[in-house]
Amino acid sequence: MLNSLSYNLLTPAQICFGWGRRAEVGELARGLGERAFLVVGSQTLCRNGMLADIQQRLAAQEIESIHVADISHEPEVADVDRLVEQLRQHQPATGDFVMAVGGGAAIDLAKAAAAIVTNAAAGDSVQDYLEGVGRGLKITAPPLPMLAMPTTAGTGSEATKNAVISSYDPPFKKSLRSDAMVPDIVLIDPELMVSVPATTTAYTGMDAITQCIESYISRRRQPIPQALAIEGLKSAVPAITTAVANGDSRPAREAMAHAAMLSGMALANSGLGMAHGVAAALGVHCRVPHGLACAVMLPVAMRTNRAVARDELEIIGRTIVDDELRGTAAVDAGIARIQEICDEVKIPHTLTEIGVSAEQIPEIVKSSRGNSMNGNPLELSDAELTQILEGML
Amino acid sequence: MLNSLSYNLLTPAQICFGWGRRAEVGELARGLGERAFLVVGSQTLCRNGMLADIQQRLAAQEIESIHVADISHEPEVADVDRLVEQLRQHQPATGDFVMAVGGGAAIDLAKAAAAIVTNAAAGDSVQDYLEGVGRGLKITAPPLPMLAMPTTAGTGSEATKNAVISSYDPPFKKSLRSDAMVPDIVLIDPELMVSVPATTTAYTGMDAITQCIESYISRRRQPIPQALAIEGLKSAVPAITTAVANGDSRPAREAMAHAAMLSGMALANSGLGMAHGVAAALGVHCRVPHGLACAVMLPVAMRTNRAVARDELEIIGRTIVDDELRGTAAVDAGIARIQEICDEVKIPHTLTEIGVSAEQIPEIVKSSRGNSMNGNPLELSDAELTQILEGML
Ligand SMILES: [Zn+2]
Ligand SMILES: [Zn+2]
Repeated sequence: MLNSLSYNLLTPAQICFGWGRRAEVGELARGLGERAFLVVGSQTLCRNGMLADIQQRLAAQEIESIHVADISHEPEVADVDRLVEQLRQHQPATGDFVMAVGGGAAIDLAKAAAAIVTNAAAGDSVQDYLEGVGRGLKITAPPLPMLAMPTTAGTGSEATKNAVISSYDPPFKKSLRSDAMVPDIVLIDPELMVSVPATTTAYTGMDAITQCIESYISRRRQPIPQALAIEGLKSAVPAITTAVANGDSRPAREAMAHAAMLSGMALANSGLGMAHGVAAALGVHCRVPHGLACAVMLPVAMRTNRAVARDELEIIGRTIVDDELRGTAAVDAGIARIQEICDEVKIPHTLTEIGVSAEQIPEIVKSSRGNSMNGNPLELSDAELTQILEGML
Repeated sequence: MLNSLSYNLLTPAQICFGWGRRAEVGELARGLGERAFLVVGSQTLCRNGMLADIQQRLAAQEIESIHVADISHEPEVADVDRLVEQLRQHQPATGDFVMAVGGGAAIDLAKAAAAIVTNAAAGDSVQDYLEGVGRGLKITAPPLPMLAMPTTAGTGSEATKNAVISSYDPPFKKSLRSDAMVPDIVLIDPELMVSVPATTTAYTGMDAITQCIESYISRRRQPIPQALAIEGLKSAVPAITTAVANGDSRPAREAMAHAAMLSGMALANSGLGMAHGVAAALGVHCRVPHGLACAVMLPVAMRTNRAVARDELEIIGRTIVDDELRGTAAVDAGIARIQEICDEVKIPHTLTEIGVSAEQIPEIVKSSRGNSMNGNPLELSDAELTQILEGML
């Protein structure tokens, strides 16, 4: 029996998951309003007619759709501010909502703009609201309602309450965060992911796996997110290599999309750890893609936390390798399996291979601090983190 | 890897769980509006001042609260129609919401009235909207927003999309159901459950356990609800006897409240089975309390489904008895453990002991058909169900 159980659980109110279910987008969106501001993150969807199809299905339900933004990189402060300005010109009102069709970048951009447009005064920037770098302004008014249709399986942003916003001058990668920012409706059609290239599939898939593991062992771990993270690992671990090698595999794409969403639900409620802390820093200082950075850091993060998170890593090992294993044998097998997956999907072992130089380590250590790192089971001093990263060069 | 994964997942957008957290009701309710229609299901809360305390906390956030209904029995058609009429007199508008403080009866009454008041024309009854007995009218307009504060740990109604409505003339027990009926915010303070009598604790707790097991093995089972049901069983099974024997036990009350909510999330998305099908019939024809009826039927339902749901019952056995067990040993141990719990909390073994006579069996069989029974793994003919129930006299 648990002692003193206390938690908050935030999830999208409605999740629809299934191959080809983008056909239902009109009926689902109808529950949110009559005018959709579309944020699109996939050029492929524009080219292959799927976006037009989605817009037709909205029109069939008498929903006007306005394509307000395209994005193909992790969103920056200026991207959000520009989109907010554009939304303002449409004078958003009751019956309007934001709809993101794309990967984590598009969903994060849409979430941030939907929240800032209803909260900020003219002239304020999203930066004023970011954790750790802004003026500490808070999201208090409800954001515009939001429907998310992910087209990659990775960040789980469709199920989280934050949007990760980057800046390169000054360099930072920080979250805009509010309980009200969880998308209201999530429509996941894994068929939209068939055209995702192998490298992106590998990086985003490893992000989802990292999110399941880090939230499961997090200092803020909670039973329900843990149950969801385990379900995510059961789904992703046997599927990721197939999804990367054979992008047309329907069961593999389904399994990865399911796991990514679960990883988002888990991290939104339990936080993350050192792999994500360092990944944010690798993103801003070395422009390493988020999922790749997570993947490089994941085996190291598991080994670093093995003493303090032994029981949790044992469960992970049993889940992803063999339910009969116990104790350190299970812990070791779990870490070895993750390393094996990293190798199968061609994740480098060293920071040097992803473009990090020794001189960058001090700034990386500094930029690794934040909400993710605070969830890491083992508390790490700057000296300890420096030593770990130097060992990875 | 799963083949062809497709599902809908409906959950409350926000769940706050924790001892004493009713203190946060004002801030939480503020997100829903400025006027609360209170539906109260617990006389004790009125008497001991807790309801007044909740109303003060609403007032402190400038939320006007209007105590519109009390209920101490499973809600009937007339109860809903009366409450809807009363809500109409207050001319509900934007900024209004419904708040239920009570057990499953109060929450179901509130959910039904919140949906009917925004959907029905004057003169229409909730009965027109009930599955199987009504005129087939549908909930299409959004219900009033809803905050649920359960004061018993059992039905999980705080997390479901239906409200069970009874009638005794003609006799039926049917659901009002809509995806839009899931409460928006759920606030679970297990301290509110300390005063629940031992018998109610036993019945409602067995309801939660039955819901976890029936949704886990249901014909409509899905991976996420299954993960939640397993977490519910891990929480409830070691706690129920303590909760019944020692109602002041904080960890036991917490575990049961947590499990009840999980059982609701699971059943809302996966359905139930024959124990719930028969329990509905036992409720209308013999006035057997819902949880007691579920508990009497649960061991029988597990044995009836053991061949068709062998793999699922094996996982349940391993979860609630011993993770080292495999195959039929695990199935048998699981069923034996449930029977043992039933005995510990003094659930009768026979239908005779709960007031059922042989002559009633035909009408019970007839009234057992519906949404719950449709989820049962094994399809049962009337003759087979009759034989099972006769064997339980
Ligand atoms: Zn991530
Ligand atoms: Zn029940």
